[in-house]
Amino acid sequence: MTRTIVASATREIVIGFDQPFCVIGERINPTGRKKLAAEMVAGNFETVEKDALEQVRAGATMLDVNAGVTAVDPNATEPALLVQTLEIVQNLVDVPLSIDSSVSAAIEAALKVAKGRPLVNSVTGEEEKLEAILPLVKKYDVPVVAISNDETGISMDPDVRFAVAKKIVERCADFGIPTHDVVVDPLVMPIGALGDAGRQVFALLRRLREELKVNTTCGLSNISFGLPHRHGINAAFIPMVIGAGMTSAIMNPCRPQEMEAVRGANVLAGTDKDCTTWIRTYKDYKPAEGGHAAPAPVAVNSPGEPSSAGGRRRGGREARLAARG
Amino acid sequence: MTRTIVASATREIVIGFDQPFCVIGERINPTGRKKLAAEMVAGNFETVEKDALEQVRAGATMLDVNAGVTAVDPNATEPALLVQTLEIVQNLVDVPLSIDSSVSAAIEAALKVAKGRPLVNSVTGEEEKLEAILPLVKKYDVPVVAISNDETGISMDPDVRFAVAKKIVERCADFGIPTHDVVVDPLVMPIGALGDAGRQVFALLRRLREELKVNTTCGLSNISFGLPHRHGINAAFIPMVIGAGMTSAIMNPCRPQEMEAVRGANVLAGTDKDCTTWIRTYKDYKPAEGGHAAPAPVAVNSPGEPSSAGGRRRGGREARLAARG
Repeated sequence: MTRTIVASATREIVIGFDQPFCVIGERINPTGRKKLAAEMVAGNFETVEKDALEQVRAGATMLDVNAGVTAVDPNATEPALLVQTLEIVQNLVDVPLSIDSSVSAAIEAALKVAKGRPLVNSVTGEEEKLEAILPLVKKYDVPVVAISNDETGISMDPDVRFAVAKKIVERCADFGIPTHDVVVDPLVMPIGALGDAGRQVFALLRRLREELKVNTTCGLSNISFGLPHRHGINAAFIPMVIGAGMTSAIMNPCRPQEMEAVRGANVLAGTDKDCTTWIRTYKDYKPAEGGHAAPAPVAVNSPGEPSSAGGRRRGGREARLAARG
Repeated sequence: MTRTIVASATREIVIGFDQPFCVIGERINPTGRKKLAAEMVAGNFETVEKDALEQVRAGATMLDVNAGVTAVDPNATEPALLVQTLEIVQNLVDVPLSIDSSVSAAIEAALKVAKGRPLVNSVTGEEEKLEAILPLVKKYDVPVVAISNDETGISMDPDVRFAVAKKIVERCADFGIPTHDVVVDPLVMPIGALGDAGRQVFALLRRLREELKVNTTCGLSNISFGLPHRHGINAAFIPMVIGAGMTSAIMNPCRPQEMEAVRGANVLAGTDKDCTTWIRTYKDYKPAEGGHAAPAPVAVNSPGEPSSAGGRRRGGREARLAARG
């Protein structure tokens, strides 16, 4: 059974076929968020802190941390800023983190200060990337996201994307990195542009699970790019990828419709034992008139549910009761 | 490619692997609805008419019609009442119908008056049932729902349920009924009682599609029986069964959350070409604050979408525009 272990200073999470879906909160990322980028450059981390707390409260299993504030000379700014951001986040919440950068020096700098066992996000099949990232992954003994594109770009042929993933797994093995520490991103295309995007990714996920036996992840909301009511498409996509074998996704946990889809699919995939998390989360749920979703409750802790907020020590119901007391 | 053709007097629908999911509206059924049963016995069909119109407006592809008002001597009451109900419904809406009864004489009586090509719901693997129903199915050249249980009851072993389905398909062939006219119901168990119910049905659906090459259906909401916020479980289950190969379900189309899951899964499975139905249905959709689902719009017709309300002649946007004019 493939098990990818990630950890903060105090909490360990397993990503695996028999585990609840791992929700990697995507919000701490200045890409496309000009205001956040400006704040971070100015040394203001209020939004970062707010995003960290909100995502954990909403049920994120892990948080992705990206400090790519500029496309102009990121090598100069990103290592220090990523370290600063990572330290703020890991001192604030206790979920495991994903170190997200296209700058190898920033990844290395962050690995030096990260507590626990972070996930490196990411390496691709490009030779230069493999040579830069895999020695770090080996040295720090951490898992890595492997994106299935290479020097030729992103292939529209799923067989090529599978072959690229396979090549990365093999290169990892050459570096002494075990397969269970490679989390493959098969690359999700927008369904509005490519009508076959769904079927492609479902077929790829099955092969990645059955043939390569790797854990998988994706930038989930790509699927709905350009369509109206994107959350509806995302919420249908989540159970389908979970059914096809995906074990984690980089997504926004602050959207109740998507998190409800994750929790529902966990029940149906048999990873929410005795429906414990579902029942605790929704037992007092009253749908709005006409059967529409009402505001979803804050995630409620349950023993053994890694995706609940902040661990047993300070998340969920206990925390709220404590706050009242 | 397996194609099951159903039809009303004026509309033909194909159930198939390459078709949008076929939503069979479940509401016209007095089982467990004492008030409706009393009305129907008294010759009052107002609720039946309301349920027919509402379900078609909500996007039902077909309607199930059941007149099982009593468990006491149904043979005496059900044939005439089913005929009466069926005639009222088929004169009111133009979607194809499913004739739902456990009384063989009622099915035969309804087949005599049904227009188009109704679906017979259902036969099981019980010898007595096979002998009673299959000659009718052959005589009237209609498709039939095959429920995978037999004299021994419902097996908890999915291999046995598959074997029962296979036996029914073979018996149908003996009667000259082609495989594409058998729609197998693999039987969905409540996930709250049987933690493996989801994985069982996904595995069964794949085998039914790949090995028997049959269309499939189920009583969808069984999956969430006994759990809180059932619509959330149903809405996660729908994309998962569609991903596993299910082609229709008997369900309540008047629940926006479930119908949104159907439409989203059609997009992702590639059966909503160019996302046409999704875009038309949700292009003006505004989610409520906090990302919760707002009231869903009434189904909007699109060329080639069989699941939209009442056909091009009177459903959807045209009808509403006409009503205004």
